Order: sequence, then C-alpha cells, then structure tokens
Amino acid sequence: MQFLSDNAASVHPQVWDAMRAADNSDSPYDGDAVSQALDERFSGLFEAEVAVLWVATGTAANCLALATMCQPHGGVMCHEAAHIEVDEGGAPGFYLHGAKLLTVAGEGAKLTPDGIRAAIDPIRDDVHQVQPHAISVTQASEYGRSYRPQELAAIGALAKERGLGFHVDGARFANAVAFLGCSPAEAMGPADALSFGCVKNGAMSAEAIVFRDDTAADLARYRRKRAGHLQSKGRFLAAQLLAMIEGDLWLQNAQQANAAAAEIASACGERLMHPVEANELFVTMSAAEREALRGQGFGFYDWGADAARFVTAWNTREDDATALAKAIAGL
Amino acid sequence: MQFLSDNAASVHPQVWDAMRAADNSDSPYDGDAVSQALDERFSGLFEAEVAVLWVATGTAANCLALATMCQPHGGVMCHEAAHIEVDEGGAPGFYLHGAKLLTVAGEGAKLTPDGIRAAIDPIRDDVHQVQPHAISVTQASEYGRSYRPQELAAIGALAKERGLGFHVDGARFANAVAFLGCSPAEAMGPADALSFGCVKNGAMSAEAIVFRDDTAADLARYRRKRAGHLQSKGRFLAAQLLAMIEGDLWLQNAQQANAAAAEIASACGERLMHPVEANELFVTMSAAEREALRGQGFGFYDWGADAARFVTAWNTREDDATALAKAIAGL
Amino acid sequence: MQFLSDNAASVHPQVWDAMRAADNSDSPYDGDAVSQALDERFSGLFEAEVAVLWVATGTAANCLALATMCQPHGGVMCHEAAHIEVDEGGAPGFYLHGAKLLTVAGEGAKLTPDGIRAAIDPIRDDVHQVQPHAISVTQASEYGRSYRPQELAAIGALAKERGLGFHVDGARFANAVAFLGCSPAEAMGPADALSFGCVKNGAMSAEAIVFRDDTAADLARYRRKRAGHLQSKGRFLAAQLLAMIEGDLWLQNAQQANAAAAEIASACGERLMHPVEANELFVTMSAAEREALRGQGFGFYDWGADAARFVTAWNTREDDATALAKAIAGL
Amino acid sequence: MQFLSDNAASVHPQVWDAMRAADNSDSPYDGDAVSQALDERFSGLFEAEVAVLWVATGTAANCLALATMCQPHGGVMCHEAAHIEVDEGGAPGFYLHGAKLLTVAGEGAKLTPDGIRAAIDPIRDDVHQVQPHAISVTQASEYGRSYRPQELAAIGALAKERGLGFHVDGARFANAVAFLGCSPAEAMGPADALSFGCVKNGAMSAEAIVFRDDTAADLARYRRKRAGHLQSKGRFLAAQLLAMIEGDLWLQNAQQANAAAAEIASACGERLMHPVEANELFVTMSAAEREALRGQGFGFYDWGADAARFVTAWNTREDDATALAKAIAGL
Repeated sequence: MQFLSDNAASVHPQVWDAMRAADNSDSPYDGDAVSQALDERFSGLFEAEVAVLWVATGTAANCLALATMCQPHGGVMCHEAAHIEVDEGGAPGFYLHGAKLLTVAGEGAKLTPDGIRAAIDPIRDDVHQVQPHAISVTQASEYGRSYRPQELAAIGALAKERGLGFHVDGARFANAVAFLGCSPAEAMGPADALSFGCVKNGAMSAEAIVFRDDTAADLARYRRKRAGHLQSKGRFLAAQLLAMIEGDLWLQNAQQANAAAAEIASACGERLMHPVEANELFVTMSAAEREALRGQGFGFYDWGADAARFVTAWNTREDDATALAKAIAGL
Repeated sequence: MQFLSDNAASVHPQVWDAMRAADNSDSPYDGDAVSQALDERFSGLFEAEVAVLWVATGTAANCLALATMCQPHGGVMCHEAAHIEVDEGGAPGFYLHGAKLLTVAGEGAKLTPDGIRAAIDPIRDDVHQVQPHAISVTQASEYGRSYRPQELAAIGALAKERGLGFHVDGARFANAVAFLGCSPAEAMGPADALSFGCVKNGAMSAEAIVFRDDTAADLARYRRKRAGHLQSKGRFLAAQLLAMIEGDLWLQNAQQANAAAAEIASACGERLMHPVEANELFVTMSAAEREALRGQGFGFYDWGADAARFVTAWNTREDDATALAKAIAGL
Repeated sequence: MQFLSDNAASVHPQVWDAMRAADNSDSPYDGDAVSQALDERFSGLFEAEVAVLWVATGTAANCLALATMCQPHGGVMCHEAAHIEVDEGGAPGFYLHGAKLLTVAGEGAKLTPDGIRAAIDPIRDDVHQVQPHAISVTQASEYGRSYRPQELAAIGALAKERGLGFHVDGARFANAVAFLGCSPAEAMGPADALSFGCVKNGAMSAEAIVFRDDTAADLARYRRKRAGHLQSKGRFLAAQLLAMIEGDLWLQNAQQANAAAAEIASACGERLMHPVEANELFVTMSAAEREALRGQGFGFYDWGADAARFVTAWNTREDDATALAKAIAGL
Repeated sequence: MQFLSDNAASVHPQVWDAMRAADNSDSPYDGDAVSQALDERFSGLFEAEVAVLWVATGTAANCLALATMCQPHGGVMCHEAAHIEVDEGGAPGFYLHGAKLLTVAGEGAKLTPDGIRAAIDPIRDDVHQVQPHAISVTQASEYGRSYRPQELAAIGALAKERGLGFHVDGARFANAVAFLGCSPAEAMGPADALSFGCVKNGAMSAEAIVFRDDTAADLARYRRKRAGHLQSKGRFLAAQLLAMIEGDLWLQNAQQANAAAAEIASACGERLMHPVEANELFVTMSAAEREALRGQGFGFYDWGADAARFVTAWNTREDDATALAKAIAGL
C-alpha cells in the first residue's frame, strides 16, 4: 500500500491506448496530426486561445516557461519551498542562464501579494541587485494547498503592476481544479504560462506547457529543441496529453486521488499540518507511529523528524485509503 | 513508401511489450529494477565495465556526454557536417555553457587524425583562442559512412596524446555495427562516451549514454536532472533500452534497415555520392527525376539542388525498397 | 566630510607613481615585467607559493575564483548578507553558469562551521538538490567583522572534510589584517583562493586573485580572458598591485582607515550594532539624528530605518573622524 | 622599433592629465560628473542621441553590445577572421550564453550583403538550426580595411530587412574614420551599437559602447555589472573617453598612426596583401627577409609562413616608420 508519491504511478489504460494509436503516424517532431491538434484542444479546455508544447518532464516545462519571462540577469520570485527552488537540481539556473530564484515566505507554500511585496520592495532598483522579472506559484502548492481564483487574480494584478511575468507550476494542477470545483481557466488565473502536469496524474512522460502568448510559445519551441527536449516521435507525447483531456480523464483521475486523500484526512484530525486541498497529506506523527504504520505495510516518506507525507494517486485503491485512514485513527 | 527518415518510424512490438511490462513497478526516476540493470547489461554488450544513463533524445545524449569532457571555455572538434554542429539548435552551446564547436573538414563527414591535426595545430596555445577539449565523431556518419575500428583507434590515440575527451555520436551506431560486422566494442573504439541510439532503430523515446568512466557518469546524472531529463517514470525508458539489446534486437533492426538500403544502392550506380555503409543514401538526381519518383509515391528529402536523400528504417518493407530500386533504375 | 564608502576614494600617490612608471613598457596583456613579478612578490607576502592574477573589480575577482571551485550544477555556501549574494548583480550566476548560492545565517555576517553544517546537512545527497561545491567567506565581513585565524582554520577543516573549495572575499582584507595584527597568511587561512582587495584601499582599478594552486590559476587565466577582463595594458594593473604591497602600503592605508573608524567608534557606545573590527561602522540612529548629522556636513548611508553606516578610507582625514565622533557624541 | 601591435602603446599625456583631474571626485560607479557627461558628448560627436557606457576592454565592449541583440539560442553573423570569432577566448559564447557565431567569408575580412545572404539563406527556418539574430562587422577590419559608408548602409539595410541587430566592432574605429575622411556617424553607419575603441589609440583602459537605443543601453548596464565590469572608480574610465574625444585627440592619434602606416606601405609595392586603409600592414615576406628585418631591430609578428604583420600606433615615431620603409625597400 504505497503512498510515497504520485510521480511513478502506473499509466492509465486510456493513455496506453492513445499511445498505441499514435504509432500509425510517421511525421517527426511536432508535425504530426496529434501534436497539431493540441492548440485547439487546449484552447477549448481553457476557453481562450492558447499555444501548447509537450515536454517530457515538469522540470523542463517549468524552466522553458520561465525562460520566456526572465532574462539571464533577472530573478524569479517563488516560495522558499517551491519545487523549482528545492527539487529541480538547479535547472532554473541552467535554463535561465544564471538568473536567480528570489524566495518568498508564505503559509502553506503559497505566495500572497503581501508576501511578494515584502520580498520585492527591499530590492534596490539598481544594477547591483538582481531585479525580479517573473513570479512563479505552484497550483496545488508543495504543501497540498490550492490557490483560489481570486488569489491568483490578485497575484496577477501585482505582476502586471510591476511588469513581471506570471507562471503557474501545475504539476498537480488537476488536483487543484478537482478540489476547487472551478474551471481550468479560473485555476490558472491570469498567468502567462502554465505547466499543465499529467505525469503525476496517469500519463507516462508528457506535460503540457500552456502559453497565452504565441510569441512566448515560439520562443519556447527554439529553447525546447536547444534543450534536447524535442522528441522526433513527439506524437507519443501529444497522444498522452490528448488522452488526458479527452472526456476529462485528467479531472476524473484527480478526483479519485483527491477522494482518497480526503478519506485519509478524515482520520487525521489535529494531526494535519495543512488543510488537504489536493492529494497530499502532511501528518504529525512520531517515529514510533510511523514505524507502526510501516509495519502494517504502508509506504510513505518521513517529513522531517515528527511528521509523515502521504500522497495519493489516480490509481490509489479505495480499500488502501480506507485501510490507511483506519490505521492512522488507530494509532 | 516513405524514405524521409528513420527518426519517426513506428515502435517495434518487442519495445511496446517491454514498456507494458514496466508498468508494474512504481519506483521513481532510475531506482527501478530495469534502470538498475542497465549497467550490467550494457557492460556485457560492450565487454567492459560501463555506466549507462537513459535519456529521451539523441541531442540530450550527445550534449550530456560532451559536457563531461569539455569545460565552458573549451572547444569540441567535430565535422562541419556533424549533427551537433548543424542540427541540434545550438544545444551544445547550451549544455556546454558557451563552449565552441571547432569544425573539421573530412571526406564522408568523417574525421581523420590528419584532419583533426590540421584544425588543431593552427590554434595558438594561449588564452585568446578557444582550446580543444574533446573530439566528437558520428558513427555511422551524417553521410552514412562507418568508421573502421582502426580509424577510431587512431583518433583515440590522437585524443589521448593531446589530452582530449573522445565522444561518439551513435545515433545510427547499430547501423554501423551491422555494416562493419564487428563487435559493439570495436565500433565504439577507445571513446570515453557513446550516445547509443535507439530511437531511429525501433525504440520510442530512449537513447543510452554509455560511459567508460563512473565519475563521468555520475557527473552526467546531475546534469541530466538539471536539464530536466530525469523522468520520474524512467523505467519506461530503461525498458526500451533493455528490449533493444535483448536478443540483439538492435542489431537485427539495423540489419533490416541496412539491407533495404543496400537493395536501393544496388540500383544507383554512379549516382551514389557516398558509399552506402549504413542506412542512408545520397543520390544524384535532377529535379525532374525527383518529381517523377514522388509521382510514383516515394517520399524523401531533397539534398541540395541536384540530389536526394533516402533513409531506410527497421520497418522499411522489402517490397518498398525493391520498388524504389526499380524506380531509380528506370529513371 | 564623506563616510559613504571607501570604494571611490582617491588614488594613493604611490599608486599613481607606479602607474606612470609602467608606461615605459609595451608588452601586452600580462607578459610585462611588472605582471610577471606578481607571483614572486605575493608569494613573499603570503609566505607560500601562490599564483596571482590581476583583475579590475572585486566582483570579477570573486567570481573568477569561485568558478575554479564550483561546477555549473553546484552551489556555493555563503552568508545571506554576502556581497556575492546581495550586491554583485547576479555575477556569480553568470560566471558559474547557473550555479546556486546557498545562503547561511551567522552573526556579524560571518560563517561558522556549525552554521555551514546546519545549511549543508539538510541537503539530500541526490541529483534533485543542488550540492555544495565551495564555501565563500568575506574577510573582513560585510558587517565589518574579522575572522580570527582559528575560525578560518575551522572552516577550512570543514571544507576539506566535505570536499569543498574555500574562497575568501578580501575586498577589505587589508583592514582585517590591520585589525587582527596577524600575518596575511593567517588572515587568509587555509583558503584555496583569496580576492585581495586594493581598490577600496588606495588603488584605482586593480584587485589580485591569489591562488594556492597553479592549476586553478591557469584555469582562471582562460576564464579571465573569456570574461573580457584581460587588459592589453595590464601592466597598469600589475603596477597598482605592486605599489600596494611595496613597503606595506596596503597595511598602512588600512591602518589609517581602521584608526579613523576606531576614533568614531569610541563615541558610539551602545549605538554600535557590531564590534568595529575593520573600517565600517553600523550605528543605531534615528532619522532625526541622521538629519542632524547631515546638517553638519557628514555624508553616509542609511542602514535600514533606524541606523546609519559609516565607512572610513585610507584618506579619511583625522579631523573629519574626530569631528564625526564629536557630532555623534553630541546627539 | 616596435611594430608588433598598437594594443600596448603608451598612454597619451592628455589622457594621463584627464585621469589625474578625475581623482578629485568621489562618486562611485558611473554617478560622477565625468561619466554623466558621456551621453551628451558622444551625442555631439555622432550627431545623434546616443547612450554610452565605458568598459575596460574591447572584448567586453563587443560582447556586452552583442548581448543586447542576440538571444542565447541565436547566432551572430561575423567574418571568419573576426576578432570575436578568433581572438576573444570564447567570450561571445560566455556573454551570449551559448549563442553561436555564424561565420561568413569575405575579401579583406569584410562582410558584404551578398556574403551574408550566402551564409544566411541556407539556414533552414526551423528550430533545428541556429537562426541569425545579429550581424557584427569590424571597422577597420582585421585586415586593415575600412568599410565605406555606403557599404555599411547596405549591410544595415539587409539587417533591417531580416530583423537582425547590427553591431560594429570599432577597436580601430578611429583609424577607419581617419582613413575615410568621413564623419564618425558615417563610419558607424546605421549600426545599433558600436564598440568605440580607445585603448589601441592612446587610452589606458577604456572603451566606449555607443548605443542608439536607450533600452539596449539600460540592458547593457545590468549586464556590465553582472560581468564584473562596473568599476567603482569608473570616473577614471570616463575621463579617458572624454580626453580622447576632446579636441578630436582620437582622430589626431589615428591620423598619426595611419600616416606611419602609409609611409611604410609606400615601400611595400606588390608585397602588400591588402590595401592599407588604417594602421595595419600585411606584407609578403620570406623567413629570411623577416630575419633580416629583425636583425635591424624591427619588432613585428609573423603572419603565417610567408608574410609579416606590422602595426603602427599613435606614438610610432616618424623616424621609425621611415626606417622600416627603407629597410623593406632594401630587402
């Protein structure tokens, strides 16, 4: 009974089917019919004209998006617990040619306009200090919290006021939408670009970068090739993306994961370190308690010395979630 | 009847099967059993201890390998027609942080010790000129020529003498081995690293970087993550690589492609611009002749104003090759 | 009466004289006799074989030194108030090709082994997190504190234990040595490289990078040219450096600056935010008090809302220092 | 009697005087009155609104200028003998974050619209090939040839048509203007930026980057700091630049150098490999002849196996030039 992460879960059967079907084409790169359909299909999903690129990983998606917004001498405002800051092996420094991540504090790994201002305002407007060029938020956040549409609107307004780009790392965007019950457009807010995650949600190796602006998307296409991320059989990535949005599979998968997380959360009571607004749970738990759970067959990561992190996935079995809930309740 | 390229050919059934089988694991990144088996399996194939990383594209494979050999202020000697020079969208400049490709002339898109010396020797040994740090050759070359083992040995000796790294871009390594009838170790020569291509040979999205040196491989692991090329479901890439070398599928596929190329070559006579030593044909052909062939349903690229390029793949049908041969003979 | 900074003070007459004398040569770059004498002269000063490069700015000195210790995918541990972190316009990100500064807390803008360990130890040893490659400290620190030799020895021991490079930003190295009363070698500690500052201490446009290791110095020579910092009339920079160490001018200048700072400090009492161990004073002071001082003709920077920073220089007039001391006492 | 290069010649007395005079200020960076006067003074010289930055070297000037025109994934068209291609130690790759120099052939180390088109036109307009973003020419060229105003106009028109930036490396701009007898504006043509060289023409350590566009200049200010090229005592660089243009010292110095070159050229006859249009001579000469000249006390560089390069400077003595002319005539 595995709750380590959603990042290596098995691939959804509909994704497999779509990949198989894509084998029939032989157009290289993104010239195939499936890749060519992405813009239109995602424009429908987001109720706006968007341009979409596939890439194999969330790290590549985030960094290619940010590289369209932040020059090498600039900075990206992000939470101090942001994935780009903590877990991407320095990829932003690579893709942005030495640009700097400027970290911001904030509850629940979420940014607020006040928090961003508190970080930006002390930066002297001169050449000696790295100036902010962009803001990046994670939806849902690294602590499993979801931004409400009005929160994104407020951050977007600040970005606009200060002339900053606005990026959303949506590695678990689907889980946020499923939790919020809003439209994808609302959950993206006024961001310039969104890393629309699929790998953690039933795909194999495809994420979408959603751009509002064609010029940015064109730039990202050059940078994608230059980063070795343009696959000659890209149709298999495009097929994964289309399969995910076909019939709202992405949303159903996320709803299943969220439901499992909610089930577990219901047993955690005051142990919960953060409200559960997606598919991750951060649960206060002693070492002995964790050992006990592991003894019962549950897999999960320690979260510091006194807590554990549980992540559910699209394929988490209801029985497993119930079993974990019971086990936690019984501690 | 498509002879445009081998880079988007369909995926071999055994590769599909291996990928399906890999769905059962849920270890992320390269911690799964399949990824963990790569070093041993490739060490067997190359009759030497090697360390192996999967990546999704040949561009990433080449550039990650070169980044272990060439510092940002150095240069990589390569043929002026090399894929890294001509067709990777500046990826070497990105991955090597501004290092320079130092181009070398040579017949058949192949380097020779003399050619390399002719390019290196005029470089003043001072800080004003970019100094060579590595040599990169392509096996089989961009013009479909294969390096003989003794040719690689000679280049390797020069590299050693000058203290340079030695890399082989093996996007079509299998085709070279199939043509040469030698062992993989012989076709790699004394190179420090090899991009062992699979995508053009029946895989979907996996290439292997084969390192002789563990330290270089470790370095490349950090750089792979930093480049966004560490996939969380990497087991699907590892599975492709193992499927390719299992039962020498890689060699059989290449033999099929080469056989089709040889069949076509047999009809080209003096039209051949280069001896056919892999699965690519460069054929002198007027615009009218090309139009005639296209009128008969053959797909291929123009090669400048007076020639055409034909590429066969693992799945080129024998009938198609025969038909093309006849059509060319009948021009 | 200017106490804004020492970074734009006038040039010492002996420096002017040495520059004039250097006009007679016409050997370009660093081939002139003055440049060629640097290694020997600094080896004498540091009682060890060192290799020395001139550059025009402290930022270039710091970054060229760090680039010999930290690979593009690595990180440099530094204080959160370090000049390289706060005031170099992202130069470390540029020179180190995207490497990351990993900030450490510490009293007086100084690092301690415990502080460094507290920052390093939580870094997971995997490819997802940027690994530390080097440590950089500032002697004297950004808050005007000086590292004792045994403090540097302890940091050096930690660096060695963890396999990290060790760099000292000595923009105000002379002031530290003057305060500590120790030898230059002791004030550098076991560091691999030192940015030996002269511009803030009476020179015009020359800093020395002092390397213990020839290989690192050779690497830095290539990087210096590549950064456009190899001046064809480099003899004028070398001349400045030799003039500074000739007859211990560097030390005398620093002693004068420190004496002026001590004079002012004697009037500050509990207002001092940090012990004065070089030539900078951070003094608690209300806005009204600062206005009063400025009304009396004193120039200085605000330091946040409730303090002021005063910096003395080699050419600070004794009368001015006394006047400032009296004025502060009279607040 | 030294004809090795103009790059290490002594500093003109008026430059020394201006530097001395600048010692009285203590405003740091480029906030001093001398630095602040640059825009206006150069705008007068170029009869147009320009924005001007000082830097210490021509390499930095070229690369900072190019970085405003060429993105990291782009390319800069330049002559295959261009200084940025051959003699800047890979600095363009560093400053442009991996962008590529795309070399062009052309007589006399000069570019022509036809030559540029011949290099650009074969570049496929796709993400696999590095696209040109800018053109860089050298005035006077590396072979001592000067572009006529109409030649620059034609290149500028091509740049505009193709949407490319246009940069002039003017390391010997003064010599070109002195030869052409035209205005500085005409010798710059419609270029977006000019590296206005002074170091080879009597200054010590200052070059000007002249931008037509304020936005580009602002960008370059951030990049200059980030490259460690913002000197805190920048007033000494500004003073050099003002001294050079004061009373047209720059032009007089170049006229002297050119006159000496012309004197020597008059003795070379058919030996001249290129017309002498500035202060460099490339002269066919056997090894024995070179030895003979050196035996007579003349210093110069070999130029390949069968020629020599002679460079005159602002301070070349008339007697020395005459002596060299006679010696060559007497060979």
